Amino acid sequence: MIKANIFVTLKKGVLDPQGEAVSRSLEVLGYHRVEDVRIGKFIEIVLDSEDPEEARRQLEEMSDKLLANPVIEDFRVEIVEGE
Amino acid sequence: MIKANIFVTLKKGVLDPQGEAVSRSLEVLGYHRVEDVRIGKFIEIVLDSEDPEEARRQLEEMSDKLLANPVIEDFRVEIVEGE
Repeated sequence: MIKANIFVTLKKGVLDPQGEAVSRSLEVLGYHRVEDVRIGKFIEIVLDSEDPEEARRQLEEMSDKLLANPVIEDFRVEIVEGE
Repeated sequence: MIKANIFVTLKKGVLDPQGEAVSRSLEVLGYHRVEDVRIGKFIEIVLDSEDPEEARRQLEEMSDKLLANPVIEDFRVEIVEGE
């Protein structure tokens, strides 16, 4: 069994309206030292596999095909267990 | 300047319909070894602060008040720069 985390983040330069909304809300709540907020996805996946190399390859393929939108998002795969 | 990451994840036992939808889509795409998918948020925050202890306290407060829903979600604050 392999456990992995995938981080999906907006590419630099891509507007993040959700992050801006959170930033403004934090300001309203009295947090005046917030300079920037960017919101991405944190995906935890469990794979029935014993081969971390092959798992990483598959997870990168899944990210590219489905989990992230490669036009506007970057992703990073981190194997946390089973390596 | 302090950079921090906040991970917001659904508590154990809380249903994750988005994760289930992704899991099914991966199955349809031919990834038959996916056992579980959970989807959370990955929030990157920059704070105008030089005090990592105080920053962590504030970030935990922000998470509790706004970024996470403490009834169904857990959060974890990680200071990545400025510590």
